[in-house]
Amino acid sequence: MRPMGQLRFELHTTADDSQARAGKIFTDHGEIETPIFMPVGTAGSVKAVSQAQLKTDVQAQIILGNTYHLYLRPSLDILQSAGGLHKFIGWDRPILTDSGGYQVFSLANSRKITEEGVVFQSHIDGSKHLFTPENVMDIQRVIGGDIIMAFDECPPYPSDFPYAKQSMQLTHRWLDRCFKRFNETDNKYGYTQNLFPIVQGGTYTDLRRESCEYIAAANASGNAIGGLSVGEPEEMMYALTALCCENLPVEKPRYLMGVGTPWNILECISLGIDMFDCVMPTRNGRNAMLFTSKGIINIDNKKWENDFSVLDAGFDSPVSNYYSKAYLRHLIKSKEILGLTIASVHNLAFYLYLVKESRRRIIDGTFLSWKKEQTGILKTRL
Amino acid sequence: MRPMGQLRFELHTTADDSQARAGKIFTDHGEIETPIFMPVGTAGSVKAVSQAQLKTDVQAQIILGNTYHLYLRPSLDILQSAGGLHKFIGWDRPILTDSGGYQVFSLANSRKITEEGVVFQSHIDGSKHLFTPENVMDIQRVIGGDIIMAFDECPPYPSDFPYAKQSMQLTHRWLDRCFKRFNETDNKYGYTQNLFPIVQGGTYTDLRRESCEYIAAANASGNAIGGLSVGEPEEMMYALTALCCENLPVEKPRYLMGVGTPWNILECISLGIDMFDCVMPTRNGRNAMLFTSKGIINIDNKKWENDFSVLDAGFDSPVSNYYSKAYLRHLIKSKEILGLTIASVHNLAFYLYLVKESRRRIIDGTFLSWKKEQTGILKTRL
Repeated sequence: MRPMGQLRFELHTTADDSQARAGKIFTDHGEIETPIFMPVGTAGSVKAVSQAQLKTDVQAQIILGNTYHLYLRPSLDILQSAGGLHKFIGWDRPILTDSGGYQVFSLANSRKITEEGVVFQSHIDGSKHLFTPENVMDIQRVIGGDIIMAFDECPPYPSDFPYAKQSMQLTHRWLDRCFKRFNETDNKYGYTQNLFPIVQGGTYTDLRRESCEYIAAANASGNAIGGLSVGEPEEMMYALTALCCENLPVEKPRYLMGVGTPWNILECISLGIDMFDCVMPTRNGRNAMLFTSKGIINIDNKKWENDFSVLDAGFDSPVSNYYSKAYLRHLIKSKEILGLTIASVHNLAFYLYLVKESRRRIIDGTFLSWKKEQTGILKTRL
Repeated sequence: MRPMGQLRFELHTTADDSQARAGKIFTDHGEIETPIFMPVGTAGSVKAVSQAQLKTDVQAQIILGNTYHLYLRPSLDILQSAGGLHKFIGWDRPILTDSGGYQVFSLANSRKITEEGVVFQSHIDGSKHLFTPENVMDIQRVIGGDIIMAFDECPPYPSDFPYAKQSMQLTHRWLDRCFKRFNETDNKYGYTQNLFPIVQGGTYTDLRRESCEYIAAANASGNAIGGLSVGEPEEMMYALTALCCENLPVEKPRYLMGVGTPWNILECISLGIDMFDCVMPTRNGRNAMLFTSKGIINIDNKKWENDFSVLDAGFDSPVSNYYSKAYLRHLIKSKEILGLTIASVHNLAFYLYLVKESRRRIIDGTFLSWKKEQTGILKTRL
């Protein structure tokens, strides 16, 4: 065991023909090979997937928890009594928690933003709550993620320049308050937590550049890019991601929040992103959409009714190489819970395969040509 | 590999102080240690549980499929194209299919019984279908269970004597037609199928005795007792089970259909039953009820909110010894799919532990005293 301490990033390889990087993140709960995809475990569970399946089938190296959900249920009292989220859910690898900022805007019944923070109503019981930069640090201390996120405002798309600017500036002021509180408080459970700041700035390159500078100056152990993949065109997302990567430190991991499709992930790896999370593999899986090495399958389509080939023979996966398309279609049509599990496990395993294969190819120098070839394949509707 | 052939039953031990038996059933898909509990995989899936979990966590030796459900969906065409249910669902251990008789009465929108068979309407799309003793054999040939069941009428409780008698006689005439068709048709997939007849006779000892004689005369490789646990008092179910066991051959396995609670199972093992199936562990699990070695837990009760002890440390089980009560309660309250899976896997693993422990104690001569002690414990509401 190495001594406990702050997250460390080792950059192993940067591609010659793109900005793609292969590296490794060291945390007190173990190592993470980058680029990495992080399954989303919203309320303390990656939906429909067991912790054993996450290890064996998905080969997840780190998962996410959502502060908004966990704060409301099971509540901080219970998480603290449990000794933090790792112990509560039975997961001994790294965890990242978001700050709740995004959920307050997307899920809460109502919300009111002030300089102080955000007052919102729970989507569960309508109760009123206040999130501030300070208490969101305290909350994430209790939840106990290895990586915790700054409290930010995620402006909608489209937002006009004045709003995006004002919102970015608020996020920056909140960031200072986050770091102040974070630095005044201690790790609760004997391992080190790490605070990542978040770049905002809407779709405006000047604002994004300014935000990157502000965020980089915080000298955190990693940096995140927020406010993308919220409805803007794909090309705009790529351009802004590229710009942020150029303006964030090389020696720190870069985390693109909430992105995306398999081809989004390959493209953004080529731009210099190291970490991804997205509900797409699990949410779309529960809605019968499979991402495979040959393209997209809508498994409830009648064409798969008599297709007894396995879900995906294109990569090594106990679940994807075991169950047939016809069987999964039957399960989904019959509303069997196992169908949701198989689709979710397959999609996550495929995402983890994609980032692992990307890493291998970045190291051996074949990433860019492979990415170009894959993009068309991954988008194919089978 | 032993040569393919008819199911064989080896009786290893009969208790001195009860009718409990320990034995082994040999099928072309492997051995089954008895007494055994068979998880119910209604529509080709043990609800919320994966095939890997059935092997690793539950340690299931045989599972059930429901003819009624599988016939309607995915349909015989698909099952035949797949090469039978084992291949369709990816399960290489034994499978038993029921005859659809019970579901026609409990699930179909409407049904009409004649000497010929039963016309019923699908609960899925209202389409009309006919089940006869002959076509139910043909259907089960296509599904491909290692053990298939005779087509019977399961009279409701209470039924008066004339109805129960008339229904039993119809079941007997149907049995003759089942065996005729079964003997005229071949195994479809290279392994041997075995037809079990079903004792009926309602709650009338004379009828039950008569039915046992009729069923025994068929000289099948195993015999089933149907029409119990349909609402009659527990003591009546035990008395009728005891009577059937006395009147069915010693050298054949005895299967009590649709029973029951953990204490029902221990009691009926003591009466001479070798095989059980029931939806209770999965259905009740999905409704937050856990059967444990210390008694019954209603996991959505607030009292478990801060109980971080594992679900059940009382027996060896990867899932029951891993997740905490507080975590499972949180998952169930949050309507997380993983909660349904954990509760189902735990309950099934506990049922399989109970029959395994019963077998061990039958062999070492301590079953009856253990059963008496367990009955009170198992019923305790925690």
